[in-house]
Parts: sequence; structure tokens; C-alpha cells
Amino acid sequence: MNSDLHTRMQELRDLAGVIGLASWDQETYLPRKGEGGRAAQLGTLQGLYHERLCDPRLGDWLADAKPTGSDETAMIRVLGHERDRAVKIPPALVKALALAQSRALTAWREARDAKDFSIFQPHVQQLLTLRREQADAWGHDGERYDALLESYEPGMRVQRLSPVLTGLRSKLVPLVQAIDARPAPKRIFAGKVFDSEAQWKFTLHLLERMGFDLEAGRQDRSTHPFTGGTGLFDVRLTTRVFSELPLSSVFSTIHEGGHGLYEQGFAQDHERTTLAQAPSMGLHESQSRLWENVVGRSRAFWSHFFPRYQALFQAQLGDVGLDDFLREVNRVERSFIRVEADEVTYNLHIVLRYELELELIRGSLQASDLEAAWNEKTKALLGLEVKNVNHGVLQDIHWAYGDFGYFPTYALGNLYSASLWQAMNRDIRGLEGSIGDGELAPVKNWLREKVHREGYRVDAETLVTRVTGRGLTDEDFVSYLKVKYGALYGI
Amino acid sequence: MNSDLHTRMQELRDLAGVIGLASWDQETYLPRKGEGGRAAQLGTLQGLYHERLCDPRLGDWLADAKPTGSDETAMIRVLGHERDRAVKIPPALVKALALAQSRALTAWREARDAKDFSIFQPHVQQLLTLRREQADAWGHDGERYDALLESYEPGMRVQRLSPVLTGLRSKLVPLVQAIDARPAPKRIFAGKVFDSEAQWKFTLHLLERMGFDLEAGRQDRSTHPFTGGTGLFDVRLTTRVFSELPLSSVFSTIHEGGHGLYEQGFAQDHERTTLAQAPSMGLHESQSRLWENVVGRSRAFWSHFFPRYQALFQAQLGDVGLDDFLREVNRVERSFIRVEADEVTYNLHIVLRYELELELIRGSLQASDLEAAWNEKTKALLGLEVKNVNHGVLQDIHWAYGDFGYFPTYALGNLYSASLWQAMNRDIRGLEGSIGDGELAPVKNWLREKVHREGYRVDAETLVTRVTGRGLTDEDFVSYLKVKYGALYGI
Repeated sequence: MNSDLHTRMQELRDLAGVIGLASWDQETYLPRKGEGGRAAQLGTLQGLYHERLCDPRLGDWLADAKPTGSDETAMIRVLGHERDRAVKIPPALVKALALAQSRALTAWREARDAKDFSIFQPHVQQLLTLRREQADAWGHDGERYDALLESYEPGMRVQRLSPVLTGLRSKLVPLVQAIDARPAPKRIFAGKVFDSEAQWKFTLHLLERMGFDLEAGRQDRSTHPFTGGTGLFDVRLTTRVFSELPLSSVFSTIHEGGHGLYEQGFAQDHERTTLAQAPSMGLHESQSRLWENVVGRSRAFWSHFFPRYQALFQAQLGDVGLDDFLREVNRVERSFIRVEADEVTYNLHIVLRYELELELIRGSLQASDLEAAWNEKTKALLGLEVKNVNHGVLQDIHWAYGDFGYFPTYALGNLYSASLWQAMNRDIRGLEGSIGDGELAPVKNWLREKVHREGYRVDAETLVTRVTGRGLTDEDFVSYLKVKYGALYGI
Repeated sequence: MNSDLHTRMQELRDLAGVIGLASWDQETYLPRKGEGGRAAQLGTLQGLYHERLCDPRLGDWLADAKPTGSDETAMIRVLGHERDRAVKIPPALVKALALAQSRALTAWREARDAKDFSIFQPHVQQLLTLRREQADAWGHDGERYDALLESYEPGMRVQRLSPVLTGLRSKLVPLVQAIDARPAPKRIFAGKVFDSEAQWKFTLHLLERMGFDLEAGRQDRSTHPFTGGTGLFDVRLTTRVFSELPLSSVFSTIHEGGHGLYEQGFAQDHERTTLAQAPSMGLHESQSRLWENVVGRSRAFWSHFFPRYQALFQAQLGDVGLDDFLREVNRVERSFIRVEADEVTYNLHIVLRYELELELIRGSLQASDLEAAWNEKTKALLGLEVKNVNHGVLQDIHWAYGDFGYFPTYALGNLYSASLWQAMNRDIRGLEGSIGDGELAPVKNWLREKVHREGYRVDAETLVTRVTGRGLTDEDFVSYLKVKYGALYGI
């Protein structure tokens, strides 16, 4: 490709990296009074990024690009796709969206303080109007939601997604009911305190064993765990440590570690190019969930790590057996809050949001009816009556950002993770035995070879299809759940 | 001023803040393998900064600026001055300098490994050639060094500076000899170990007592202490902790705390403008040195803080008296290494470098004769024979960056600090008594009102003149040294 184009691509990736640093710092080390200044700095960086991306010269360079080889072709395709979508949105709409988001965030906080959805409702309606307008500007084949989904899960379409999530819903509801009918695991942590420093050291031990390179990344503390950083040799995870909820640090670290291994695993040749990124949020989430749930909550994993964990917390866990620990780690419980949900009920929370979002964007549901629709679906999917709106329709921040189309990527993460796990077990003989010996390198190496180093060469489902032999499906995930929870709950 | 100009000024200050963040992170938390990526990110940011600064439209906006009030006039003057200097340097020279610096840094490291100046010498010559070219591009009245000095100490000129430093030299040499003839203080730390965590906590205590706002700044560890950050509500200090050299963390913190108070003290109205910065490196250094040396090494200061410090390190300092501690803290010793020098000998190291730099830039000294000239001056000024070139002409990194004109700002810092201290004592009755009671707020408040909140409204010497009643002079500094060291050494 020509050198102007190459330089501009690198510049944009560098700016994205710096935005990553400023955002990470905002959540970790920024002094409280620096928040206003940081918002201004991030605004300036994002403005510059947008200006350099929409620069007409970049359009010319892309049109005249003479790629050499398939990697360059892919780099140019990804950059062109990002630019096309950016230039299609009129500046007035960008401004209107930013303003509406900012007001909606304030209203969402006020609504939660007052436990009153009506404060937030007009802002949802306004964001829906603007997002529909944005979807039309991007273009679609009659299904506006597709254009929104494209921001998070490029290539995915409602037509493909809806049947899968509907099928998943129909299998999860009875599975949850069956588990619910069985006795709940006993609570093994109640009233116990776990030293923060010991927890922290254990999380670092886990990261090392997962193969996360602490010379090309780091872990810090933040209120909400996330994975960020500035590039494939500088990947930053955060976790949180609660002295009375010891599993929080463990599984936050494993989850973010899964994201972090993905970020560290892009091909070195792709550094500072558009290929050094995941093709979708769903595929990114498949990595965190594969590590957190499939590997990190498995019997094999803890048959190796539990003795060490127990030794660290002898007073608290000395008399706890591996079976009780595993049941605690895999406790299934119908609950109101998505972010606290277990891997069985979790996707019901997603299906609920997806079905509502689709109706909202299609216009068959109005914001004024959203609370009632939410409560009704909570009853249908989880069998729960919403009493507190903050545990209902006001629980997530996503809609205050106008992020319609984001939620389904969480479910895609779970579905892809199970399919990848199946394929990995076909490829690697005795994988669970290795994990049981504390050998996690085979997992990391397989993911690195099959998924990570591909970067954004192809879209997520194409990549998954290539690796697993089939595309998006709920079958691998449902059968994984049935085997695992059948054993744990005796059903 | 018009809104395009105002927006561009804010954008440039935001970019400068982000460069500050990326640089701070590079020295504190960046993973080792991320260094290459960070260099690229910083290069991109600096390139964007330069491009936006040199943008011809900014030139037009500045020419058409209609400032309202003296603050806006000053903002525009500072921005115009920065831009004028940037556009005067041809891009080819910018590139040649960057390349020469990069090669010189490598050669400097190699020369130190080999203890052989000849490896570094051609690079010094090359940098001198380019810097002279740059000085000519900037313009000067026949004294090229003035154009270089302007980068660090705007408004200062050789004609003004040389007589002051020559006078200083003539008074320091006999003072050092007189001190040298007296018995050396006894060493009170030899063989003792000071817990790092206790040292760290003490430095935070000092920062709080100095009035450094830890909600608008922070302190971290780095190899070389520095002050950075992203704006006046996000000021970042670093210090270093050595278990066998306890004074290192204490005085690094007080020194950087002095810089940090300056950065936090700019007027809030000047946030994101060119006025929220010091008018010169020398004036910035006056703040760190006033706190570190004048306040932080005074009897009044330690008569309050020593009991607490002693209590923290009872085993190590329980039998040490305040007098012995003060003599240790103010030990004067002729030595080879500038960065380890005490406040009496320090300026002889600066005079040495200044005199050599001036000859080098004027062309009356060649790089090939630099080592011999260095050694000769070391003998003349400090009475020491250089045996190890790494403790001689190869000790500083500055010349490998081509930073000719920077060294004198350290001396200006000392001279200004003493003059400000004199003025402060005239203004505040019983100041030393307050300090003796641990009350540091009067010092901070006076500096804030007289110096900090002025920002870059006027140049350094103008500001100092306004505050002290006279401009640059060595008299206040020399008389401060004579009184203090006369008492300490009995001369």
C-alpha cells in the first residue's frame, strides 16, 4: 500500500492506543480533581481521531491503495469500513448523539436515585430516535437493528441471530427450572474474611499460569474490572478485591486475563495496523468467558489450583472440600442483576434485553411501555417479579449511552466459547488432564494459533466456522451446560 | 480572542497534557516490552502537536486575534512565540536533529561502557553544528547561545547571565575552600537500613504538610525523580526510595513537591491556556530548590520534623541529635558528580558546563578539546583531578540530547530561590518561627500568590523583579550560603 496510507493507519492506531492509555488511567490512577481535565483531553483526542479518519485525503488514498498480499488487503478493508461508517454520519447527528448521551446519563443517575423510570424514559425515546436516524445514515436492508449491531459485531444480522437466541431461550428456561428444583449448594464463604494482599498475589499467580505476559502487560485495581492498554505489548487488566467476596478477584482476573491473552496474541507483524484487533466484541468475549467459565470454573482447573488456594486461606477454607468449592463456584441462582448472574441464567438476561431492543428499534415498543415489558419478560424468562426498578430496567448503564445492539455480543461470547472449547478438545488429546495438572499452555497456545493471531483478517463468524467446522450455534453451549450442571446438580 | 484560536489553543494544551501522561507512564507503569510502541505513540503525538502548531490557519488566527484584556494578550503572545520558533525551523533540520540525537544517545551509552570520550566526540560535534544552524534559523544578535537559551529561559541573554555566573564563581570557590578546611560532619547513616514503606509514608506526610493537594496529584516511584502530569488538577510527582540512603526519598520528594506546588498553583482561569505554565525552567527550578534546600534543609524545618522522623526510625536514629542530623543533611563535599552535589558546590558544576557550552557554541572550543577542557576546569573550580571520564565529561545525558543552554537554568533556580526567600522573609514576620512549628502554609501561600498564579503572564526575571524589587543577582544566594554554612561549619 502507499506510504501516506500506511502512515495514516499507524497514526490512527497510535491515537487509539493513547486514548486507551488515557481511559485506563482515568479508571486507575487519575486524581479525583483531574476528571474534568481528562474529559477535555479525551474529547480532543477523539476529535482528532475522527478528523484524521474522515480526512478526504484518506478516502483518496484508500481508493488508490495498491495492497500487496492478503494482509494488506484486509488492513485496507477494515480501515475503509471504519471510515465509511464514520463519514456517513453528519456532524450534526454526532453532536446531537453526544448531547443526548450526556443528558441521558445524568437522567439515568437521577432516575436510579429516585427509583423512578419515568425520569429516564424520555431520554431513552430521544436516543432511540437518534439511533434510528444513525442506522438509516449507515444504511440497512430494512432492519435498522442490523446497522447498529454492525458497530459491535460486524457481519452479524438479526436474521441470523434471532433464531439462535430464540432456540437458546427455549432450552435455558427448562434447564434453569430443573436446577432450581434441586437443593442449593451450601454457602462456604459466609462470615469469612480473606486478606486482600493474599488475594492479589493469587490473581497474579493465575495470570502467570494462564500465560499472560507480565512484561507486556500489567494488572491494577479499579472499581469495574476491564481490559485496556495501548497495544499488543502493553495490555492492561484490572480487577477488584473484596475481602468478604474472595471469588470476585479470582474470576475477574481470569475473565480479564482471557481478554488480555487475546490482545497480547495478535501477530507482531500486525502491530500498529487495523488487523491487531478482534473482529467483534462477541469473539473478544468468547475468550474471557472460555477462560473464566469453561476453564476457570471446571473441576480440572480447581483440582490443581484448589490446594494452593486452600493453603493460602487455611483458616477460612481448611475444612472445605473440592466438591463444595466447585458447587459454590458454579452456583446457579435466578436473580435480577445481569452482572451478578451465573453462566446458566446469564443468557436469559441477554435474551430479555435483545428482544426488547429489537422491538424498540423497530418501533413496535415505545419507551413509555418499556418498564412494563421488562417486568413481564423477567417473569417469563426468570420467573421473578421486579419490585425495585433499579434491579429492573434501570440496572444497566448501556441504554443511557444509547448502546442498542451491544448486549447480544455477551451471548455470542458464551456461544462461541463453547464451540471453540469443543473444537479444542477434538484437537488436543487429554486436554482436561493437562488442565488438571495445572498445565494451561495448551489452551493458550491453541487459542493463539487458531484465534488470536488471526486478528481482524476475517469477521468473527467466518473465523469461528473455519476453526470449529460450523458457525454460530447454541448447541455446543447447551450441551456443555447440560453435562456440567447435570453432574453438579444431579439432574 | 476568536473562537477558532481559543479552540486550537485548548487543543494544543490538551495534547501537551496527553504527552505528559504518556511520558509519565513510560517512567512509572509501562511494561518493559511496551517501550517501542510507546516511542511510536509519543512520536505521533509530538508530530500532531507540531503540525497543529505550525498550521498556517493558526498563523492567520493569531494575526487577526482580538484579545480582550491582558490575560488574553499574554496567552496570544506566548502561543505566538512558541509558533514563531516552531515554523522557523525547516523540517529537514528537525529530522536531522532527531536523527543526530538518537545516534548521539547510543554513542553516549557506548562511550560510557567503554569509558572513552572519543566514541561520543563526533556526535557532540555534529549536534553543535546542527544547533548552531538552528540558532541561526531562530535568529539572534550575534550571540547564537542566546537563541538556544531562549528555549529554556525565555528572555535571558548571555550578556546578562555571564557576569552574574562569573561573580558567583569567584565567591563560591573561596567559600568551598573555607568549608573544606573544616572538619567533615560525622556520617550518621553508615551501615543502617531504613524500611522502604516507612520512608514512603514519611514522604507522603511531607507532601501533605507542604500543602500539595493529593486529590489533584499523586506520587509514584521512578528511577529518576521528576514532576509531570496532565494539567493543574493532575500533577504527578515521582520519588525513589533506597533503604540505605534515607535522605534520597526525603529530599527528592520535597524537591519535586516544590515543582508540583507550582504546577498546582496556576490560576484556575488559565486551565487549558498557554498561561498555565512557568515562564522558564529557571523559575520552575527556583520553586523546587527553595523547598528542598532553603526550607527543607533548614534548622527550623527539622526542629519540627526531626522528632517524628526519629520516632519512625527509632533504632537507626534514636541516639542521633538534631545538630548532627542537620550537619549530615547539609554536608558540603567537593565531588565529581553534579547530581549528587550539595547546594554550595552545585553551582560550580553549572558554571563549568556553562562556560564550556558557550565556547562550544561560539566555536572557540572544539569537541575534540572538550575532555581536556572539562578536566582542567574541574581542577580550577573544584580542585579535583578527573580519573574516570564517566565521572567527568560523560556524566550528563544533556549533551547527548543536544541540550546546550539548559544547564544554566539550574543555577538560575538557586539564585532566584534565595532572592524569593529574602523577599518572603521581608513580607512575613516570624516566618522561620512558623516553619519551626511545622506551619508551612505561609510559604506555600506566599509563593502561590506572588509566583504560581501568575503563570506565564510575564517572563521570569520580570516576575522576580516585581516580587523581590530587583532582578537576577547572586547576592541573596551568596549571603544565604554564608550565613547558613558559616553557622554549620563555624567559619
